[in-house]
Amino acid sequence: MEKISEGKTKEVFLLDNDHVLLRFKDSVTAGDGAKTDVIEGKGILNAQTSALIFRLLEREGIETHYVGMKDERTIIAKRLTMVPVEVVLRNFATGSIVKRLPISEDEVFDPPIVEFFLKDDARHDPLLNYHHMRHLKLMNEVEAKEIEEVMIKVNEVLRAIVVRLGLKLYDFKLEFGRRDGRLIVGDEITLDSMRVRDPNTGRIMDKDLYRKGYPLDQVKASYEEFLEKLRSVA
Amino acid sequence: MEKISEGKTKEVFLLDNDHVLLRFKDSVTAGDGAKTDVIEGKGILNAQTSALIFRLLEREGIETHYVGMKDERTIIAKRLTMVPVEVVLRNFATGSIVKRLPISEDEVFDPPIVEFFLKDDARHDPLLNYHHMRHLKLMNEVEAKEIEEVMIKVNEVLRAIVVRLGLKLYDFKLEFGRRDGRLIVGDEITLDSMRVRDPNTGRIMDKDLYRKGYPLDQVKASYEEFLEKLRSVA
Ligand SMILES: Nc1ncnc2c1ncn2[C@@H]1O[C@H](COP(=O)(O)OP(=O)(O)OP(=O)(O)O)[C@@H](O)[C@H]1O
Ligand SMILES: Nc1ncnc2c1ncn2[C@@H]1O[C@H](COP(=O)(O)OP(=O)(O)OP(=O)(O)O)[C@@H](O)[C@H]1O
Ligand SMILES: [Mg+2]
Ligand SMILES: [Mg+2]
Repeated sequence: MEKISEGKTKEVFLLDNDHVLLRFKDSVTAGDGAKTDVIEGKGILNAQTSALIFRLLEREGIETHYVGMKDERTIIAKRLTMVPVEVVLRNFATGSIVKRLPISEDEVFDPPIVEFFLKDDARHDPLLNYHHMRHLKLMNEVEAKEIEEVMIKVNEVLRAIVVRLGLKLYDFKLEFGRRDGRLIVGDEITLDSMRVRDPNTGRIMDKDLYRKGYPLDQVKASYEEFLEKLRSVA
Repeated sequence: MEKISEGKTKEVFLLDNDHVLLRFKDSVTAGDGAKTDVIEGKGILNAQTSALIFRLLEREGIETHYVGMKDERTIIAKRLTMVPVEVVLRNFATGSIVKRLPISEDEVFDPPIVEFFLKDDARHDPLLNYHHMRHLKLMNEVEAKEIEEVMIKVNEVLRAIVVRLGLKLYDFKLEFGRRDGRLIVGDEITLDSMRVRDPNTGRIMDKDLYRKGYPLDQVKASYEEFLEKLRSVA
């Protein structure tokens, strides 16, 4: 099967003209790829987590690229023409926004803040506004607004499930792609792309563990625990 | 008279409850204040340039804070509650946008790109989107859209005059303030806050001369020449 692209954590194979296989690797990276390691089994955990969440979203009427599983670390997905933009929704402040703006860790965003970033590791994923996206031919303002509405819907579904696990959803990142002129949710939804913490203890469950230098086995244990919890309620 | 604030290039005095005096200093600064010098007479040139352009805008029906002149370096203005945001409109690419995004020097923005930056030297004036501005209580989305429309109108007036001088308007920056619940154009419009070049030779006329390290007398000569040209056509 033809490999059509490979990123930092996934390989993409062309299954047929309309479908791709997304094979989740065991790599973990941070700092736009500056820091990288291998956690054996992480690819399986992330493929499973992502598949489970995509099925939840579909059940709530949100269109995604998810079709099914090929094997334990490989998702069958609709082939999309990806927009090289990361769309972030924030419920609580942490990470880059706290460094960039006069905003304190844990500050509440109500309504949530949505941000668009260009996928450009060399430029450290710069923030985009609607004008930039139009000029760079990424999407027009109407599409950006539609994506913001999808982000809000996804947030409601994700928040509800995370709350049922007794946890707190700080933020998450989605990537969108075009299919028949529509923009739908692609890529992945995993602990690599969302931030989840225990609201009482502050315990971090997501890739921030890796960013902050926790041992790799602790990162893996947290990903495993989260997936188990997800399975128990989903 | 009470000095109510002083920035890098202007002092603000309270004239009466509704009016301020903006006294233009001879300082010139770049890099969020990292580089600074004195150019004798620059304050006069900038006060005169700004006043002339504000009168032009008013003549075209764009509301500004401009009331009149107190002396050759001091503008009488309506007292505004300033929004600590710099609003930039770009017709052609140069400066920070060329470093931040995959955009080349001199690239055409048609329609123009409008950007909002937080006035925060310590954080190097970060880019803002509508969500950030709402959360930081700077302005809501409706106000942001209104400001974008004012930017477009100001651009038309400025472009027309700059073209009559045989020059090319790359970009400009405005600051807005509130008065009776409305947002109007405040601060200044000078060669410190816009970029103007000769379209044929590429000769720079504005503060980029200073940013790029040209001798101070050359910077001053350019500001003088621009003001003279402005006077000859306005
Ligand atoms: N349904 C899809 N169809 C086609 N490509 C997809 C689909 N879903 C995700 N992709 C793409 O798969 C690629 C590999 O993913 P991965 O997360 O490893 O890449 P990345 O490291 O984030 O970024 P980069 O794309 O810069 O390599 C990404 O470019 C992503 O946009
Ligand atoms: N009409 C107005 N009423 C009240 N304040 C004004 C008005 N117009 C401009 N100002 C304010 O005058 C101050 C002094 O201007 P100056 O350009 O020197 O400041 P700055 O160095 O850009 O920034 P800072 O405000 O951070 O000192 C600015 O804070 C500006 O917002
Ligand atoms: Mg990725
Ligand atoms: Mg200023």
